[in-house]
Amino acid sequence: MKVARFSHGESISFGIVDEEENELVVLKADPLFAGFETTGERVPMGEAKLLAPVIPRSKVVAVGRNYREHAAEFGNEAPAEPLLFLKPNTSVVGPGDAIVLPRQSERVEFEGELAVVIGSIARHVREEDADDVIFGYTIANDVTARDLQRSDGQWTRAKGFDTFCPLGPIIDTDVDLANGTIETSVNGEVRQQGRLSDMVHSIPAIIAYASAVFTLLPGDVILTGTPAGVGPIVSGDTVEVRVEGLGALSNPVR
Amino acid sequence: MKVARFSHGESISFGIVDEEENELVVLKADPLFAGFETTGERVPMGEAKLLAPVIPRSKVVAVGRNYREHAAEFGNEAPAEPLLFLKPNTSVVGPGDAIVLPRQSERVEFEGELAVVIGSIARHVREEDADDVIFGYTIANDVTARDLQRSDGQWTRAKGFDTFCPLGPIIDTDVDLANGTIETSVNGEVRQQGRLSDMVHSIPAIIAYASAVFTLLPGDVILTGTPAGVGPIVSGDTVEVRVEGLGALSNPVR
Repeated sequence: MKVARFSHGESISFGIVDEEENELVVLKADPLFAGFETTGERVPMGEAKLLAPVIPRSKVVAVGRNYREHAAEFGNEAPAEPLLFLKPNTSVVGPGDAIVLPRQSERVEFEGELAVVIGSIARHVREEDADDVIFGYTIANDVTARDLQRSDGQWTRAKGFDTFCPLGPIIDTDVDLANGTIETSVNGEVRQQGRLSDMVHSIPAIIAYASAVFTLLPGDVILTGTPAGVGPIVSGDTVEVRVEGLGALSNPVR
Repeated sequence: MKVARFSHGESISFGIVDEEENELVVLKADPLFAGFETTGERVPMGEAKLLAPVIPRSKVVAVGRNYREHAAEFGNEAPAEPLLFLKPNTSVVGPGDAIVLPRQSERVEFEGELAVVIGSIARHVREEDADDVIFGYTIANDVTARDLQRSDGQWTRAKGFDTFCPLGPIIDTDVDLANGTIETSVNGEVRQQGRLSDMVHSIPAIIAYASAVFTLLPGDVILTGTPAGVGPIVSGDTVEVRVEGLGALSNPVR
């Protein structure tokens, strides 16, 4: 099932994407908390503006250096354990929203990533039970001010600016990603290409590791790391992250 | 005005502390969002269990190495700009709640800190306007797994464990902290003593700096750094952080 959050006229709603009819089946409330009861209404996709499909109440947890070739492009090895950091929920924007370049940085880069949306309160989850706490999957761009990441040491500022966490376009609750690919392009030119199976730490391993540190809450989002090929974006660019089965997350830069 | 969040019987409420009567004047709703309208009820302090006075919807922003002597005790210089990091809201507990030592760490340390509670949406705030976005002040303990802080490089895990951000006991909306002191003791023995005026980056400077990175939301909390004297805590200890004018935040360790 593909779940979207969208605005239509004055209202913001959640809906299920009906791909055959190219419509959104409107839900009564946020399916993360209220299930999939429908209102009976339908909205043509063309009339809806898709929004970030989730706004985390607590955390965007991200994993650094989770593809060997990306770690290597900055001279690092992939760490033996997942390297966790946080992005604030104020950095989240939706599909089509602008990534705003902050004046503090002279080099902002894209990082296309698969994102996991947590569906239930999760604490000390075992790897084999990780699927039970996953609501679904979406796409993220872990936008990073590369110069500040280096100079600050801590990555909070470099990865925490407003608009630095595009999410979307939809959450798929039952996509099979085992043989999936992820691809990031800038202005239509492919810059990153990776296989999701090349992650150093698997999604169940990351959930087990993170949930042994902090309780994960419904709506928390985990970014699973970026493949090799990251690079700068400048005003006027459009960056698009595509994951097989999840569509494409496209954002202009200004 | 001193504001508390508390449980009494089955219900959780906000209240204003009436120090003369030793009572809580019950508020209709969270004063951060709904002002100070009272219900007419009063609850004796002795019947209330004080809770964390705020649960951030978005961020606990913390500042590293913001007292010169603390930076020096780990061989660091105080940075020229505030060194920001995030603690997740899932790490917040209240006064009297246990700090739970995680099995991943062999050295957990206390860090007594003054905390600022943000009162309004704040973006690109100028230093001279910082007071306008402050709701009040409370006390924090920036509990840190020192071994993991060193080994991970990023501080997210070391400072993000559940229970690693005690806050409380109350928020004071108009205390004068200009000549205030902060003192942390373990089992009654004083371990940290600092003057709030010794902060390297002042509260207005931190708010200006942080709000130029991410939008601060009502209920966001900023931890302003810890003075020298941090040290380990072990199961059975009680750690107490005291700020002149704000009372004491006491937590057992287990």
